[in-house]
Amino acid sequence: MLISELSERTGVPVATVKFYIREGMLERGRALSATRADYDDDHVARLRVIAALTEVRGLPLARVREILALIDEPTPDLAETMGQAVGALPPYVSPDEDLTPAHDALATLGWPSVDRFAAVGQLSAAIRAVREAGMPWDESTLRRYADAAAAIADDELAPVPGMTASEAVAYAALGTALYEPVMLALRRLAHYRALDAAGLVDTEGRRG
Amino acid sequence: MLISELSERTGVPVATVKFYIREGMLERGRALSATRADYDDDHVARLRVIAALTEVRGLPLARVREILALIDEPTPDLAETMGQAVGALPPYVSPDEDLTPAHDALATLGWPSVDRFAAVGQLSAAIRAVREAGMPWDESTLRRYADAAAAIADDELAPVPGMTASEAVAYAALGTALYEPVMLALRRLAHYRALDAAGLVDTEGRRG
Repeated sequence: MLISELSERTGVPVATVKFYIREGMLERGRALSATRADYDDDHVARLRVIAALTEVRGLPLARVREILALIDEPTPDLAETMGQAVGALPPYVSPDEDLTPAHDALATLGWPSVDRFAAVGQLSAAIRAVREAGMPWDESTLRRYADAAAAIADDELAPVPGMTASEAVAYAALGTALYEPVMLALRRLAHYRALDAAGLVDTEGRRG
Repeated sequence: MLISELSERTGVPVATVKFYIREGMLERGRALSATRADYDDDHVARLRVIAALTEVRGLPLARVREILALIDEPTPDLAETMGQAVGALPPYVSPDEDLTPAHDALATLGWPSVDRFAAVGQLSAAIRAVREAGMPWDESTLRRYADAAAAIADDELAPVPGMTASEAVAYAALGTALYEPVMLALRRLAHYRALDAAGLVDTEGRRG
């Protein structure tokens, strides 16, 4: 396909496509003439990864490059490479964050701890904030979120064994970038559903 | 307690406490003398709400004020007030977002739709991004996240019937601000656990 069709199929303006090519993030198309080049489905897939990370999640180009490099050259340890790619997504936690809260939580759950993964620091910072605010943090609170996360993760990863390593890394980064907002919005809507079911919608004269 | 103890118990510096008082976000303590005032547990709770919203989630003061106003004067419809308070938290979606994707999803789930809630726009924008990236969006994908969200929400809202309206609104805003990052970090860690369980950790010589 020509660059105009590539732009149409991905929703990325032609000028932006050319920018990504100049920046080395997207391969040049196969030259058809001095001014025309041919693009294929690989270009579409690549452009969708770049667009989701930059436009939807607002990642700086340096972080997008990190993820693209992991897609292009995954290490032999697939879980490690997927974890690194996901770790390039926000939130960015201080490297000085004390990891004890996450270690304790993971030990309680019997889940493997991998300190080099950003999510360990993210969980520690999140637990610290919950505690500092005086909100509940105990084993049943932990399991509330961990059980849901485990069910989601098992389901999300089901297609991974049929993928190449590069596909799996792109899937991990894109899936996290795109399904996290879905999950959060649904939780907020589930609150209204639960309050409605409990008869707490439009409760006039409530104590306040 | 004196302002120094209030600062110590909440981790908010004395100068910042004074700033919140000047801004009308935190009530003055009961005057003990010309220069000393007495603070109580209500001040601690209030300060923790402000600190969690500003420092943990980085909310601009105008948004924090919106939430404080809803805590101070909840409307008779509790679910409505809780939804508004949560809606002051990011992400902020364009009011022009087409709500059809969320309407379709909520109809599939049989959940009530409440267009005035920000989460309806957030879900629509999130689904649009998933589709634009060419990632799967079908009923089983929707239910993966909706089932988890419903279980979490039911559990989170269990204590609400025992709260005053003000407490419930503060709990909704704080709970969303603080448990969302926990949930996201656990999902990322659950991936590693699932890959480990599937024998996909350190798989040398994998196709790539």
